[in-house]
Amino acid sequence: MKTTVIGLGLIGGSIARDLRKSGFATELIGVDASEEHASEALKIGLVDRIETLENGVIDTDLVIIAIPVNMELIVLPKVLDLIGSSTTVTDMGSTKKQIVDSVRNHKRRRNYIPAHPMSGTENSGPAAAHEGLFQNKIAILCDQEDSGPQHVALIEKMLQSLGMDIAYMTADEQDHSTAFVSHLPHAAAYALANAVQAKADRNIIFDLASGGFRSTVRLAKSSATMWHPIFQQNRKYVVESLNVYIKHLIEFRDCMQDEDDEKMAALIQNANKIRGVLEGQNPHFVKNEQKITKLYTK
Amino acid sequence: MKTTVIGLGLIGGSIARDLRKSGFATELIGVDASEEHASEALKIGLVDRIETLENGVIDTDLVIIAIPVNMELIVLPKVLDLIGSSTTVTDMGSTKKQIVDSVRNHKRRRNYIPAHPMSGTENSGPAAAHEGLFQNKIAILCDQEDSGPQHVALIEKMLQSLGMDIAYMTADEQDHSTAFVSHLPHAAAYALANAVQAKADRNIIFDLASGGFRSTVRLAKSSATMWHPIFQQNRKYVVESLNVYIKHLIEFRDCMQDEDDEKMAALIQNANKIRGVLEGQNPHFVKNEQKITKLYTK
Repeated sequence: MKTTVIGLGLIGGSIARDLRKSGFATELIGVDASEEHASEALKIGLVDRIETLENGVIDTDLVIIAIPVNMELIVLPKVLDLIGSSTTVTDMGSTKKQIVDSVRNHKRRRNYIPAHPMSGTENSGPAAAHEGLFQNKIAILCDQEDSGPQHVALIEKMLQSLGMDIAYMTADEQDHSTAFVSHLPHAAAYALANAVQAKADRNIIFDLASGGFRSTVRLAKSSATMWHPIFQQNRKYVVESLNVYIKHLIEFRDCMQDEDDEKMAALIQNANKIRGVLEGQNPHFVKNEQKITKLYTK
Repeated sequence: MKTTVIGLGLIGGSIARDLRKSGFATELIGVDASEEHASEALKIGLVDRIETLENGVIDTDLVIIAIPVNMELIVLPKVLDLIGSSTTVTDMGSTKKQIVDSVRNHKRRRNYIPAHPMSGTENSGPAAAHEGLFQNKIAILCDQEDSGPQHVALIEKMLQSLGMDIAYMTADEQDHSTAFVSHLPHAAAYALANAVQAKADRNIIFDLASGGFRSTVRLAKSSATMWHPIFQQNRKYVVESLNVYIKHLIEFRDCMQDEDDEKMAALIQNANKIRGVLEGQNPHFVKNEQKITKLYTK
C-alpha cells in the first residue's frame, strides 16, 4: 500500500519502520516541514522518498499525520482538501476534540479517522524512531460513526499490524481520559523538575539524583513543541486533572504536617494498589491476540 | 571479612550478593525479624547462615543494618550495646538525623558510620535483591568527624567495592537534599496514584495507562513499611519539598488557566533543562574510577 507519513519524528518515523517491516506499507512517502528532519529520515531509510505536502498526499492510499497538534489544525484540513475520494487519512495527536472540530463540516470528513496511539518516549526527531514502539499498547479511535466504514477498517488493520489494541470512544471522552493518564503525568513531571531546579543547592541535588528521581522526572524532558499545544488544546481537562492532583498532594502534605499516621498509612496503601493495576491484573485489559477491541462510547 | 547483614530485603540482600562476589565478605551472617525472609534469604544463598541479633553481631567484623528507619531507632542502639570495640557498624537508612541522634552519646558511637546508598527499586524482600544495584550510584556518608577513621575507611572501601561514589555531608544536609531528590518524588507518585484512582471511570484510565504514566507512578508501588517511617523521620524537609512542589504545580495550572502561553513555554523549557543534568552533562558529577569523592559539609 502506498503510504504517506507527514511528520517524520518519533511517532511518524516509528510507524514508518513498523509498517514497512510488517509489509503493510509497500511504498513510503515522507513529508516534513523541516528539511533537516526530512533528509535525516531519508538517510536512515524511514521513507523511500520525500515529497512536498501537495505531491505527497495526491494519489496515495493512506495519509498518516504525526505532527504537533497545533500544526494539525492547519495541515489536516489542507490534506482533506487535496486527497482523492478513496484516500484514508488518520492522525496521531494526543488531543482529539479541537482537531475533529476543525474538519467537522469538511466534505472529506468521512475519509478521516481520528486516532491516538498511547505510546511514546521523552525523545523526539527521526533518530528517536524505533521498531516496536507500539507493540501491546492501546490506540484510541474516536467518533467512528463519523467516518466511512472502509476507512475505519483500514486504520484498524494498520493499528493491529503495529501490534496495538484498540479502544473506541468519543473525542471528548478521549481528551478527558488522556488528561489523567498522560497529560497530567507530563505536567506533574515538568513541575517537579522546576521545583527541584529552584532549590539553591542544586549541585548536591543533581549529584544525588537517584533512579527514583530519574524515572519520576523522565517526562520533563519532553519537548515544548509537542506538549505546549497539547496543554492548550486540552486546557479544560488538564486543569481539572491538575486540580485533583493538587488536592491529593495537599491532603498528603497536611496529613504529614498533622502527624496523622493512620491516614498517612491509608494513603500509601491506597496508592500501592496501582501496582496490581499496572501489572496487568486488571480484568479490563484487552489483549491484541484475541482481536478483541473495546467500546467505551456510552 | 566476617560480615553481618541485619535485614535481608532488597537493600541488605543486594549488598550481600555484591560483597560476596567482590570477595569483600568471606563469611556472611544474616539476621532478619521475619522467619520467612530469613529462610528465603538462606535458601537463595544471600547469606551463609542465619543468627539471632545477639549471636549475629558479637564477634563480627562488620554489621550492616538495612531495615525500615523506625526499626533502626531500636536496633542500632542494641547493636552498639552488643558489639566489641573493633567492630564497624553502618546503616543504609534513607533518613539520617533522627538515627544519628538516637546514638549520639553512645560509648560505641565512633564505631558507627551513618550511610545512605542512593539506589533502590519499588520492590522489596529477599527475592528482589540483585547484583549491581549500587553500581555507579552515590552513597552519602554523614558526620564523618564523629566516627573513628578506621571505621570510616572500612565503609568507604565497602562502598567502593559496591561500585559507588561517595559524597560527604552532615546528617541534616543529607535529610534536606534527600527530601527533594528521593522523598518528594515518592510522595508525588503516591499522590498521583491516588488522584488517578479517585476518578470514577478508572477502567478506561487503567486500560489506557501508557509508558509515561507507568514511569511517573512507578514509585507509588513502594512499600508503606519502608516509606511511612521515612516520611515521619524527615517530616520537616519533606513538607518543605511538598510546599515547593505544590507551588510550582499551582503556577503551572494558573498559567494554563490564564492562557499565559509565554509563561507556559518558559516553564516547559526550564523543566527541559533537567535532561542535561540527568544525562551526566553535569560538571559536578563525580566518577568512581577516579576515586574522587566529594565533600559537601560547609
